[in-house]
Order: sequence, then C-alpha cells, then structure tokens
Amino acid sequence: MRRALTLAATPGVPLGPNPRVGCVLLGADGAEIAEGFHRGAGTAHAEVAALAEAGDAARGATAVVSLEPCNHTGLTGPCTEALVAAGVRRVVFAQRDPNPVAAGGAEALRAAGIDVEAGVMEPVAKGVNKAWTFAVEHNRPFVTWKFAATLDGRSAAADGTSHWISGTDARRDTHALRAECDVLLVGTGTVLVDDPQLNVRDEVDQPVEHQPLRVVMGEREVPADRRIHQGPGEAQHLATRDPAHALAELYAAGRRHVWLEGGPTLAAAFLRAGLVDEVVAYVAPTFLGAGAPAVGDLGITTITDQLRWHLKRAAVIGTGADATVRLTLTPGGDH
Amino acid sequence: MRRALTLAATPGVPLGPNPRVGCVLLGADGAEIAEGFHRGAGTAHAEVAALAEAGDAARGATAVVSLEPCNHTGLTGPCTEALVAAGVRRVVFAQRDPNPVAAGGAEALRAAGIDVEAGVMEPVAKGVNKAWTFAVEHNRPFVTWKFAATLDGRSAAADGTSHWISGTDARRDTHALRAECDVLLVGTGTVLVDDPQLNVRDEVDQPVEHQPLRVVMGEREVPADRRIHQGPGEAQHLATRDPAHALAELYAAGRRHVWLEGGPTLAAAFLRAGLVDEVVAYVAPTFLGAGAPAVGDLGITTITDQLRWHLKRAAVIGTGADATVRLTLTPGGDH
Repeated sequence: MRRALTLAATPGVPLGPNPRVGCVLLGADGAEIAEGFHRGAGTAHAEVAALAEAGDAARGATAVVSLEPCNHTGLTGPCTEALVAAGVRRVVFAQRDPNPVAAGGAEALRAAGIDVEAGVMEPVAKGVNKAWTFAVEHNRPFVTWKFAATLDGRSAAADGTSHWISGTDARRDTHALRAECDVLLVGTGTVLVDDPQLNVRDEVDQPVEHQPLRVVMGEREVPADRRIHQGPGEAQHLATRDPAHALAELYAAGRRHVWLEGGPTLAAAFLRAGLVDEVVAYVAPTFLGAGAPAVGDLGITTITDQLRWHLKRAAVIGTGADATVRLTLTPGGDH
Repeated sequence: MRRALTLAATPGVPLGPNPRVGCVLLGADGAEIAEGFHRGAGTAHAEVAALAEAGDAARGATAVVSLEPCNHTGLTGPCTEALVAAGVRRVVFAQRDPNPVAAGGAEALRAAGIDVEAGVMEPVAKGVNKAWTFAVEHNRPFVTWKFAATLDGRSAAADGTSHWISGTDARRDTHALRAECDVLLVGTGTVLVDDPQLNVRDEVDQPVEHQPLRVVMGEREVPADRRIHQGPGEAQHLATRDPAHALAELYAAGRRHVWLEGGPTLAAAFLRAGLVDEVVAYVAPTFLGAGAPAVGDLGITTITDQLRWHLKRAAVIGTGADATVRLTLTPGGDH
C-alpha cells in the first residue's frame, strides 16, 4: 500500500476533477507484477494501467489500490469490471470512495467473488486526496486562503507598494503550494491594482508548463491587457461577488481545490461566508505601522466573535534576513 | 565554569543594577571547596560569598567566576582585594567586565601575582547577563517590546474588548518573561483605558512577591485608584513622552531591562526612536478584520522603509485551540 500511495502522489500529474490513485499488482508469492497510477481525467485509471502492464499475469493476482475501485462509467469504464475480467483474486484498497456516483466498487467486487479488504492506511490515502475528498463530500471546491502580511497585519505600505514583505524562500514556497491547486483566485480589485501574473513559476521565476486555471471574480471589467491573460494556462472572469456562486460554478467545471489569494475584500467575503477551509499564513518579521490591511472588514465588533482557527503547523521558511513564518490553520470550534 | 554559570543564573535573585555572578572555589586537587553567587545589590559579591564559605581553605585555591572580578568599591569592596587577601592562587573567569567603572580586575589580580585566565565560556556568560551587558555598554536599559495581536495585526476588537486574543499558555509565558525584567512599562493611555495590574503573576494568577517596577510614561495624569498602584511592588509615573528621556531616568535609577508592553502609540514612539532591542511577538491564529492596530503610525509610507527584524526563534506556546505562536526578533540590517 505504501507503494500504491507513492504512485498516487506522483509529482506532475495534472490536477483535474479526478482523485490521485495508485495501484500495485502482486503475484501469489507477494512479489510485484505491475503498477500504475492515474494521470488525470480522460486517461486510464490506476487499476487499468497496472492491469495493462501485467497482461495475463494479472490472473489470480492481488490488486492493492489507494482508492476503492470505481463502479461507474465516466470518460473511462468501471475499474471493477476490468479487475473482474482480468481474473484478479483479491483487492485491498485504502480510501473508500466518497463520490456517490462512483462508489459501490467493493460490493460489486465481492458480488463477483473477489476477496476485498477496505480501509488499509485510509488516513494517509485521504491526505493524498485531501482537497478532492472534501470537494466530493461537500459538492464544492476546497478553499485554501493564502494570507501574507507584516506582523502588524499589513499587506502593503501606505503608498501601495508591497514588494517585498515575505522573503524569497516564502515566495517560492507559495509557488509550490499554488501548483497543488487547480484554481488560483483573486478579485477584480487585485487585477486592476496589482496586475499579478497569478501563475506557478519555477525556481528561476519562469512559468511552469501546467498551470492552474486563473480566475478573477467580481463585477468590474477586467481589461484584456492584464497579465492574468498571458499564457501558459488559461484565465477566466466570473462576474459575481458571491463566493458560494463562484465555487458552485468552479465545481461544476470540475475544479476541486481553489487557492484564494485576495485581496482583502474578497478574502473577507469568503471568511464571512464560512467558505475558507484552510489558511496558509505567511507572517514576515516586519512592521509598517500603516498601509492596507491584509483582510477587510469581517463584520466583527467584539472579541468573543473573533474567528479563531486551529494552528495545525508552524514553520520557518528561509533563513537569516529572509526568514518568514508560515502558519497552516484549520477551522476552529467557532466556525 | 558550568557550575559557576548555573549559580549565576540561580532563579529568584532580585534583579537590580548588578549582574548575575556565580563563583566556585577549587582546591589544588580540583575538588570543590566552596561556592557562592550574588544575591543582588548591597549583598556580598559571588567571590566574597564563596571565600566566606571556604575560610582558610581558600589559600592556594583556584576561583572560577562567571564575570571578571570587580576592581572598585561600590556598596561592597573590590573583589580583587578579597581574592588577593584570601591567598587565592589562580582566577579563571568567563565574561570580561563591560562596566568601565568596575573593570581592570584581571590586571589588578595579575599585578598581585595571581595567575589569570579570561574568556572561558564567555558567550554563555554574556547570555546570562544579556540585558545587563547591553545596558552597561549603551548607558541605557535593554528594551524588550512585547507585541501581541491577531494574525491581522489587531490588539482589540472594534468595541475595545481584547480578552482574550492570546491563549492561556501564552499569557503565562508572558508572566515568566516579565519576571526576568526589572521594569514593566506602559503609556498613560493603556492605564486609563485598560487599567492593567501590570505585575508578575504565578500559575494560579496570584502576584509573586518580588515585582518589577511598574512604570507609566506620558504627560496625562494617572488617577490614584488605578490598579497599577496596588501592591506588591511599586509604581512610578514618568511625565514624559520621550523614550530616550524615560530610559535615561530609568538607567540612572539602576534599571537595566525594560519590558515595554504598549499601547500602540508608545510602542511606535520607541520603534521610531530605534529604542527597541528585542521583540517578543505573540501571534494568535485569529482574525478580527477591524479594531485597534497593535502598533501605531511609524511614519513609514513605502515598503522599502519597513522595519525588518531578524527572526531569532519561533515557538508554539500552548496546544490545540489554545496555541499561540511566539516569535523572538532581534534588530535586522535596517536599524
């Protein structure tokens, strides 16, 4: 199962509506026969990829899969049928499929006389597909809000300048985390004022080939000459200020993990709507004393209404004068 | 020397104008004869305490001291003379005395025919007396600014409420750090608005016996019924808004380590004057979106003028919903 999970988490797989899945086929002696992983929507599922590699050797084998084999026909056929047809004797899987459309794989396999073991290393498997699992369970994309500010909560100086508050290593870290999402989301205000590239760049600041979808939301016009429209990758304008509406549209388009990057008004709208599922906060050891606040008005007037989050992880990114603190927060008891 | 440094750092020694010092006397065979430490201004110095314990056994002994023996007569006589009179043969010390008034001990001992070794574990010894060393070298107290805020830089909600932003463990941690200072400093605004006790309390929230001096600075009147005037310990009002002036007065009164606790205007005045030597920042994983900023205007209008500090340490204080991040910052290259 460790190998199947490693295959599932193969770097570089283009994110899309589908989960990451890995599969290992073992012979009767326990030795590996073949392996496969899912390379993105429209390509072979992990089980089918492994079965293709194994050929006739799959007969009587054990399939170890990181996710319950699917039981429906989407862009590809059901994996349960492929496993049965190949003569697999036993299936061990980690995560139960949370997708009601694709679930029922274990029952279908058992009905076909295959020995099934479910839930092996399930928490690890859920971690591999954290955003996808949440999205499928909640019918909307998982939202990670990236917060970056000085210690006194400013995201820009009084004259609007903001390059740079976070250190170099923190900015690289942001690109690595952006790459794990399939939507980068900002408000029209950010595009009009800051004109960001809003893409994933490598260590030498060049855009990588596979880019998340760049989305601008808000009712103001977005001029065609904004950098958000430059390739590689695509950009889209959602002419709404309603976070729930925007997320519904993105989910319908197969998007599962939104990286919300601001500005303060949009972030506040998502927080007020309870539509932030994780905060990645970069806090730089600097003070400005004035300037734009990193988050807008939340409608909170008294301390007992503050939005308290759980501190899941704290890390120092970079060293010396470049050091920035990164906090990962998950929803607390208050929301 | 490790034992001498441990003696120097004996908990509970009342802080005052003098450094913490420990001394161990060793016989010709290297075995310990006696030890002593300085218990605060007006009491015996560490060397004298150890010599008193040793009596005649000190003849021919080696004295291991965490600080260069003093060579001047203050409230007590010079330690150099006491060491010579007791017949000590050799003196090993860690930190050279940065105080020009008391320095010259090594030379005086050598002139008396005593073998002297200086600088053994000096960095550790300087750490034991960090604030005192800085103060003596700069002729003003070392200033630690305690900053506490939400992630978005607020120290109170819009209605002024602020109990509590930091977690319980972070508040206890604050009391432990306050206890290491000899002045707790706030502005008149904080006393008038928040009416803090501004003392050191133990784990069950009771004031400890030895309290730092409570100081309010600013030109407004401080009513006698404010809690700052309640014992144990003393309170003082410095009728000035000038940080340099206040620090000069406190240094002249023998104070070496100021714990600056706010409010935002006073903190900004110290930052603008370059008179903050260390920041202890408690950042709670909460958002308010509005309310009082934790630091006032710094006169900074553009990003290149931001006050960037070095991140010396990052720690998570408390667990679960109580977790708060504590950052310790030292001056960066900008100031």
